[in-house]
Amino acid sequence: MKALRFIGNELKLEEVAVPAVAGEALVRVIRSGICNTDVEIVRGYNGFSGTIGHEFVGVVEECADAPELVGKRVVGEINAGCGVCEQCVKVDSRHCPHRTVLGIDRRDGAHAEYLTLPARNLFVVPDNVSDDQAIFTEPLAAAYGILEQVTLDDKMRVAVIGDGKLGLLCAMSLAPQNKNISIIGKHKEKIAVAEAHHVKGILLEDVDEAMHRTFDVVIESSGSDAGFETALDLLKPRGKMVLKSTFNGRACIEMWRIVVDEITVVGSRCGRFAPALELLAQGNIRVESMISAEYPLEKGVEAMRKATEKGVLKVVLKM
Amino acid sequence: MKALRFIGNELKLEEVAVPAVAGEALVRVIRSGICNTDVEIVRGYNGFSGTIGHEFVGVVEECADAPELVGKRVVGEINAGCGVCEQCVKVDSRHCPHRTVLGIDRRDGAHAEYLTLPARNLFVVPDNVSDDQAIFTEPLAAAYGILEQVTLDDKMRVAVIGDGKLGLLCAMSLAPQNKNISIIGKHKEKIAVAEAHHVKGILLEDVDEAMHRTFDVVIESSGSDAGFETALDLLKPRGKMVLKSTFNGRACIEMWRIVVDEITVVGSRCGRFAPALELLAQGNIRVESMISAEYPLEKGVEAMRKATEKGVLKVVLKM
Repeated sequence: MKALRFIGNELKLEEVAVPAVAGEALVRVIRSGICNTDVEIVRGYNGFSGTIGHEFVGVVEECADAPELVGKRVVGEINAGCGVCEQCVKVDSRHCPHRTVLGIDRRDGAHAEYLTLPARNLFVVPDNVSDDQAIFTEPLAAAYGILEQVTLDDKMRVAVIGDGKLGLLCAMSLAPQNKNISIIGKHKEKIAVAEAHHVKGILLEDVDEAMHRTFDVVIESSGSDAGFETALDLLKPRGKMVLKSTFNGRACIEMWRIVVDEITVVGSRCGRFAPALELLAQGNIRVESMISAEYPLEKGVEAMRKATEKGVLKVVLKM
Repeated sequence: MKALRFIGNELKLEEVAVPAVAGEALVRVIRSGICNTDVEIVRGYNGFSGTIGHEFVGVVEECADAPELVGKRVVGEINAGCGVCEQCVKVDSRHCPHRTVLGIDRRDGAHAEYLTLPARNLFVVPDNVSDDQAIFTEPLAAAYGILEQVTLDDKMRVAVIGDGKLGLLCAMSLAPQNKNISIIGKHKEKIAVAEAHHVKGILLEDVDEAMHRTFDVVIESSGSDAGFETALDLLKPRGKMVLKSTFNGRACIEMWRIVVDEITVVGSRCGRFAPALELLAQGNIRVESMISAEYPLEKGVEAMRKATEKGVLKVVLKM
C-alpha cells in the first residue's frame, strides 16, 4: 500500500506492506486531513519516525474484537493506551504513559491506504455526516473538549487567539455556549470562516490597550510566544488561559505575569470523539468550509507543502 | 527618618522626611523582613524606585479613619487599591489595575522608620504572636493562600520545589492539610526547617525517574526555569502546578509539555492576612526558626547583601 512517511528526516511517499492486524481493527482509509502537528513532526517535533497523519475517516475491513464494526464508516481516537496500567484502568487511557499515538508517537498513522487501531478506539460516523466533515472529528473534539476543562457562561468575555484551523474550530464549536466570543488573527479571509458562525472577528493589528484586561478566558491557539503574551495582555486578573497548541522547542515567556495577575493556564490537548460527532451530526458547524485543497495520497508530499502556505486552512488527502 | 531606598539604580540608606499621612494611617515600623522580591527589585524587577520592603510589624501612630487602631501593633496588606474601580468594589482590591504596592509599585515601603497605608489595609496582631513571627504574616499569607486556589486532600501527593523562604512557608503551612507533602531543594539545612514540621525533605540530586509523574500538585517556588521543568517531570497527567515566584525576565519553557499532559498552571501571588495571623496565633508553625540574621536599619545595605548569601533564610531589620 502507499503511505506518506517521515523516515530518516525525510518525508516521502513509500510503498509498504498493509499493516498486520495483531489484535486490532484494520481500517481502509478513505480520506485524511493534514494537521499542523504533521507539519511540526516533519520539523522534528516528538522525534517521530513512520507514517504521519492522525485525522481520518475510513471503513473497517477486519475487526476480531468487534465484528459488528466490519463494513462501518469510522473515525478513531488517536491515543492507544496499554489498557492495563492504573491510568488506563482508573483514569483516562489518553494519558497512559505507555500509550502510542496514531502518526505521532510510535504508531503508524493515517496518511496511508490502511491503518490499524484497537477496536475500542473506533467510533461509527452518523450517516448524515459526510466524509469531508468526519475528518474534522479529531480536531473538533480537541476544540470542543475545552468545555470539559473550563466552564463558560454567557456573561464571560472569551477570546481565541490564532485564526488557524484549531483556533477556528475552537471559536466555532464554543460559539453556541457563549455569545461574547471573539477570534483574533492576522488573516481576514480565515477570520471570516468563524464570523459566519456568530463569532466576532478582530484583526491582531486592531488589538489595542482598551482591550487589555477585559477577557475572562483566552484560548491560545496561535502556538507562538507572541500569542501567549497577547493572551496575558487580554486577560483580566485571575483569568484563565487555555493553551492548545503543541509546537517544537521552547517558548520564552514572562512567567512573572502569570503570578502577579494570578492567571490560570490550562493545558488542553485531546477531547472526546462522541460529543464531537454529535456536534457534526447536528449540522450547525460547517467545518467543511475550512477545506482549502484536496490531493490524492500519491501527491502527499506536495499536499504537505501546500498545508504550510499562507492563507491555506485544511488540506485533505484522498485515498 | 532613616529609609533603605533604591534610587537611580543604587541601594542606599537615606535620611528622608517622615511620610505625610494624607488620609492614611501612619505606622512606626518596629521590624521588617527582607524578601526575595526586595532582592529582585534591586536587580531591576518592576522598575521600582523608592523605599523598598513590604514585610513589617509596627505600631499605629496616627489614623483618622480608624482612631481605635492608634497604639495598636499591626501588620499590613501590601496592595493598596484605588477603592473606587470595579475590581476594588466588586472583585478584589489586590488586583486593582491602579493599585500601588508597598515597596514594590509606586509606594514607599517598610524598610524605614515610618510608613503609611490605608487604615483598611491594617490588621491587629494577636498578643501571643511575637514581633519576629508577625513579620512573616505577608509571606505566610501568600503561602497559605494557595488553599484558596487549589483543593488539597490527604490522598494527593504534593511537592514543593525550592527550599527558600517561600518554599519552606508553603510546605510548613500546607502540611496540616496534607500528610503527603514533600519539599525538594538543594540545601540540607534549609530542608531541615520544613522537616521539623512533618514535611518530607528530598534533596534535588535524589529526584529520579521513579518520582516522575507521581505528584498531583507541585508548588514551584524556586523561581528558576529548571524548577519549572522539574515540576513538569514530577506531575501526573492533568496535575496542577502552583507558580509562586516572581522574578525578573523571561523563562524559556517547553510549553508543549503543559498541553500534552494537560497540566494546569495556577499563578499565585498574595494571600489574605487574617487566616495567616490565625495560623501564627495557633502556634504550630515556628516561622521564627527561619530567621538567619538581624541587623539595625542603619546597616540595611549590608543586610540586603547578607540576604543573598548561600544558606541564608530570613534577614530581619530592627528599627
